[in-house]
Amino acid sequence: MRALIYHGPGKKAWEEVPKPQLIDDGDAIVRVDAVTICGTDLHILKGDVPAVTDGRILGHEAVGTVEAVGPGVRTVKPGDQVLVSCITACGRCRFCRESRYGQCLGGGGWILGHKIDGTQAEYVRVPFADTSVHPLPAGVPAQDVLMLADILPTGYEVGVLNGAVGPGDVVAVVGAGPIGLAAIMGARLFSPSHVIAIDLADSRLEAAKEFGADITINNSREDALSAVRDLTDGLGADVTVEAVGVPEAFELTVALARPGGRIANIGVHGAPAALHLEEQWIRDITITTGLVDTFSTPTLLRLLSGGQLDAGRFITHHFTLDEFPTAYDVFADAAHTGALKVVLTR
Amino acid sequence: MRALIYHGPGKKAWEEVPKPQLIDDGDAIVRVDAVTICGTDLHILKGDVPAVTDGRILGHEAVGTVEAVGPGVRTVKPGDQVLVSCITACGRCRFCRESRYGQCLGGGGWILGHKIDGTQAEYVRVPFADTSVHPLPAGVPAQDVLMLADILPTGYEVGVLNGAVGPGDVVAVVGAGPIGLAAIMGARLFSPSHVIAIDLADSRLEAAKEFGADITINNSREDALSAVRDLTDGLGADVTVEAVGVPEAFELTVALARPGGRIANIGVHGAPAALHLEEQWIRDITITTGLVDTFSTPTLLRLLSGGQLDAGRFITHHFTLDEFPTAYDVFADAAHTGALKVVLTR
Repeated sequence: MRALIYHGPGKKAWEEVPKPQLIDDGDAIVRVDAVTICGTDLHILKGDVPAVTDGRILGHEAVGTVEAVGPGVRTVKPGDQVLVSCITACGRCRFCRESRYGQCLGGGGWILGHKIDGTQAEYVRVPFADTSVHPLPAGVPAQDVLMLADILPTGYEVGVLNGAVGPGDVVAVVGAGPIGLAAIMGARLFSPSHVIAIDLADSRLEAAKEFGADITINNSREDALSAVRDLTDGLGADVTVEAVGVPEAFELTVALARPGGRIANIGVHGAPAALHLEEQWIRDITITTGLVDTFSTPTLLRLLSGGQLDAGRFITHHFTLDEFPTAYDVFADAAHTGALKVVLTR
Repeated sequence: MRALIYHGPGKKAWEEVPKPQLIDDGDAIVRVDAVTICGTDLHILKGDVPAVTDGRILGHEAVGTVEAVGPGVRTVKPGDQVLVSCITACGRCRFCRESRYGQCLGGGGWILGHKIDGTQAEYVRVPFADTSVHPLPAGVPAQDVLMLADILPTGYEVGVLNGAVGPGDVVAVVGAGPIGLAAIMGARLFSPSHVIAIDLADSRLEAAKEFGADITINNSREDALSAVRDLTDGLGADVTVEAVGVPEAFELTVALARPGGRIANIGVHGAPAALHLEEQWIRDITITTGLVDTFSTPTLLRLLSGGQLDAGRFITHHFTLDEFPTAYDVFADAAHTGALKVVLTR
């Protein structure tokens, strides 16, 4: 089969490799029908994720058709269409029993395209299939379901639920890339009074409006802190979400919160940030961090089936699997191509 | 009357000043029967709290007898013995209605001995008396109730409740001064499996054992991170509490938490700390900060009345009001005197 192989920082190739085989009782082999590229894959290609080694097939998001299952698999069978989640869960360890699948101690967690071969291939081996794939709901395009492999549960769990967005809240999202947009879309489910999108690029802020932001601030021109305080009786936002992953963005996200406010970090960081405890010790703030667990995927699938979640809105470009190198170029150059999520199909 | 007056950094005096008068309808004038000194008062004397100006009477903790009340006061009357809480609450603003009295927007919050004259005096004016003092329960020594003016609700709300300590949790408290000890005592109410006290001084660790710590780590000699991980299958503590107020202690407190752990900052900080998001973004942590609200004071009073809270254990030294300068010296030199809380009475 063919797959997108990582060959060390800056190097990747769409090339011929052996087709994956069942190894463990709980495995499924899934034929990949649709697959996407994540910002995290670009981090890997920059060399930011040293656990990914030369020869690894990248990718942790897919929709596909089960081709074979190990003898221990009970809930899916060959021929079933499934969503392959970015988080694989043993389902048995302490953290899995607490729904904290991202922290799985039993060999799961974020392993696809990281510690084992991933989904950017014609076929993928998925361990712990019973607790790591989801049957596709009827009547929903497979490519829309694909958006529930990572981006939508990440924005929803790590941003919206960790931030405990509630009716009437003022929510400020720093960073209007795909993850920030997913947080904005998820926040709207809870009837906030305002969703404020903050970014340096007008094009992203335009997208944020389409995803549910009613106020946009370009903080290359405007003082975001003053703008948010002016809107909130000088107090700050009820919930603030970091969806960038750099210290300056995190520090702004903390500053934007009101006393008693909740600050949800989604961004993947490579460096420490300053936490201004000399200001914040007295302000009753709550800061959360997190890797997605995907415990919300069944809920999001129901919302998608019911027409309450417009997952397809993320998809800007389509390619075939053989166009993988081009798809990476288009996705990596989002500033010019306007790419949010690209979808590759057979 | 006589009172302890702040005269700028490093300067204080026990001197004659005018007796306070009723100003607002909701005021009470309280004759101070017992009063204590807080670590925060030492911060003020170092000049760390510039809002406190020359001529201010210090102190935000007292037990006393109501001498007079304004016409708007309904729940206490002259002759009643009351606890004067460190937090004064208007009871009417948005934050008071959410029980977030420490963030009161209506002129309350931490104001005694800060923005208005405080309790280290023969008499004190307490605004918003109905929502800022608590009648003394019968059968409990007044000096024990005095420990509920600040230290016990602070350890309980900002440490134990913000950290969401629960049965079976491993709780690590960094700093075994009075506030750390209050957090240890409060944590025991929730049946944790272990309470670990971490400090640089053996004498404080000995005290921590008396307050409920079953494991002590002197981190001038031992690697606290290794010790806590050895105890927790390599994961870290479920709840960690910062009770020091310096960046190094905060950074240790964050590092000690397990994936999914809860980090409660109680310490009063004067400088930023580094938050190692490059390690923590993926670990599902929750960090809280807070000023005490004292919403738990009625609960703590019930526990005290029922013999479930040994508040008197904090009291190491007794003085009369006229010995205030000596009491400050003994409290400030806790390393040699072993002082935890000093009580001054008429």
